[in-house]
Amino acid sequence: MPQKILVTGGGGYIGSHCVVELIEAGYHPVVIDNFSNAVRGEGDVPESLRRIEKFLNTQIEFHELDLLDKPGLEKIFKKHSFYAVMHFAGLKAVGESVEQPLRYYRVNLTGTINLLEVMQSHGVRNLVFSSSATVYGDPQKLPIDEQHPVGGCTNPYGKTKYFIEEMIRDQCTAEKVADLSIITLLTLFGRLVKIHRESQTTFYVVLSHCVFTPDGTGVRDYIHVVDLAKGHIAAVRKLKDNCGCKVYNLGTGTGYSVLQMVNAMEKASGQKIAYQIAPRRSGDVASCYADPTLAEKELAWKAEYGLERMCEDLWRWQSQNPTGFSNGTQP
Amino acid sequence: MPQKILVTGGGGYIGSHCVVELIEAGYHPVVIDNFSNAVRGEGDVPESLRRIEKFLNTQIEFHELDLLDKPGLEKIFKKHSFYAVMHFAGLKAVGESVEQPLRYYRVNLTGTINLLEVMQSHGVRNLVFSSSATVYGDPQKLPIDEQHPVGGCTNPYGKTKYFIEEMIRDQCTAEKVADLSIITLLTLFGRLVKIHRESQTTFYVVLSHCVFTPDGTGVRDYIHVVDLAKGHIAAVRKLKDNCGCKVYNLGTGTGYSVLQMVNAMEKASGQKIAYQIAPRRSGDVASCYADPTLAEKELAWKAEYGLERMCEDLWRWQSQNPTGFSNGTQP
Repeated sequence: MPQKILVTGGGGYIGSHCVVELIEAGYHPVVIDNFSNAVRGEGDVPESLRRIEKFLNTQIEFHELDLLDKPGLEKIFKKHSFYAVMHFAGLKAVGESVEQPLRYYRVNLTGTINLLEVMQSHGVRNLVFSSSATVYGDPQKLPIDEQHPVGGCTNPYGKTKYFIEEMIRDQCTAEKVADLSIITLLTLFGRLVKIHRESQTTFYVVLSHCVFTPDGTGVRDYIHVVDLAKGHIAAVRKLKDNCGCKVYNLGTGTGYSVLQMVNAMEKASGQKIAYQIAPRRSGDVASCYADPTLAEKELAWKAEYGLERMCEDLWRWQSQNPTGFSNGTQP
Repeated sequence: MPQKILVTGGGGYIGSHCVVELIEAGYHPVVIDNFSNAVRGEGDVPESLRRIEKFLNTQIEFHELDLLDKPGLEKIFKKHSFYAVMHFAGLKAVGESVEQPLRYYRVNLTGTINLLEVMQSHGVRNLVFSSSATVYGDPQKLPIDEQHPVGGCTNPYGKTKYFIEEMIRDQCTAEKVADLSIITLLTLFGRLVKIHRESQTTFYVVLSHCVFTPDGTGVRDYIHVVDLAKGHIAAVRKLKDNCGCKVYNLGTGTGYSVLQMVNAMEKASGQKIAYQIAPRRSGDVASCYADPTLAEKELAWKAEYGLERMCEDLWRWQSQNPTGFSNGTQP
């Protein structure tokens, strides 16, 4: 019997790519999502999962569920015996979190507390939490390894990620006393560029202006989502070592500026991309890229795709889905 | 009509002393408490409040309520039009928080999120939150003023205090955009010595051992609970200035070691106090005392009682209530 993995937020961008990799690696994913970010497809299943089902010619067990619905969550844990949980669910827009902090604290913190409580009461002690590089705050050194101090987050979204890491760490310590716990954390460095399609031939990109980097735009560790998903699956595999609470920084180890990214996209697409330099978004750090050495050493994982391939795949997807997942109703 | 103030955890040690000071200052306190720390007295009212009612010959409105019961909280806010909230409710045992972190995160964080949400939906924007000096972590300089960096807390209890301060700060920023918010934070330096009565004549005190201070015991800013309560009432008065999010360190500004405290207690009580040096509790910092200059300047508040008076009052109370509030059933 394949091991069952609960994937929270499994209809979203990273979550759904992890579902693919879980299936390919022989696991049995059970997905929950509340459609807060995922696009609703046929049969009230996330469109992302519907496509995966077609592509892999398989069926994915999906439940529409909000982590704030604790009785609903209990039901899923009663129905299944999970080997592990991969936790992606949560609100994730930095700007929105500044405007609606209570909503972010409610959804991300209370949602995670519900999850950890239900895991505890059902004896599920394996967790891979998809965190964010934002927990490291303004980098004190580059590249950022796992020893880099955490905290100093400048927006509520980032704080929720940091607080959740601390909760998991504390829960891990508490359970370790009983010699029980195996919990893994991941801190991601992947970053998406939002591309709003304006016409058939023009992209329009808003760059946050960032005076501290060579070309004035923010430097990030862009990583191919398939690499990222494979890193998560490597972490799931690591759980069998009873590894305790571990953090792995997943990244390529190379920082590219937003302008370099735009140039690569122009090359991949053969299209000119119009852009406009916007004021720096409050809370955005200048440069941030990972030291992925530990992940390579302990997870035997390394990012395989470079900037060029990322942009080619992004362009291919964009060309084939000019209006995204929603067939015209959503940008 | 006197202004109504909701006091969460108003049956507890600091909360109930604040209720006295609120009444004396002409406010109308409405108290909620779940008896998690308060001792249940006659008529299912906290014993502390029952005594205040007798002492001041007054009636205090009390509701047995847990902050996790959001519909119950909504009811209280529908019944009353509150000028402000004083927030004391929460679990507070450092050691227990290490063993049961999820319980602390659930009660303290989700409880506070409920409170802030209900305040927001009822347009109540005045809050005095009773925090803890633990948010400053291991002090980088002494005395600690309000500019001292926060974070670096070493136990879940301390982290909940820190996370709540951050939530309030973010909520304050979000509401300020709409020119609405007046929220005040207080960081306390008061510290109680737990005295377990063993017989009629002997006290027994367990001291945490702390190698970094002159006599090897932890140095703290001991403050009389009446001074502390008066500081809180000064903060409630400050709310009328639309002061935004403010932090005030309430303390005497003087650090005493636990041994000095024991000596003062011996003097006040005329009793010899037996003590035993125990290993340092994990997470306990060596020295911690406040710089109360800002509170004096902006709140016109200053601690009035010294160590001697504190010990005299503590001894008087202990002598008159040898078994505490519970008449024999509780130490």
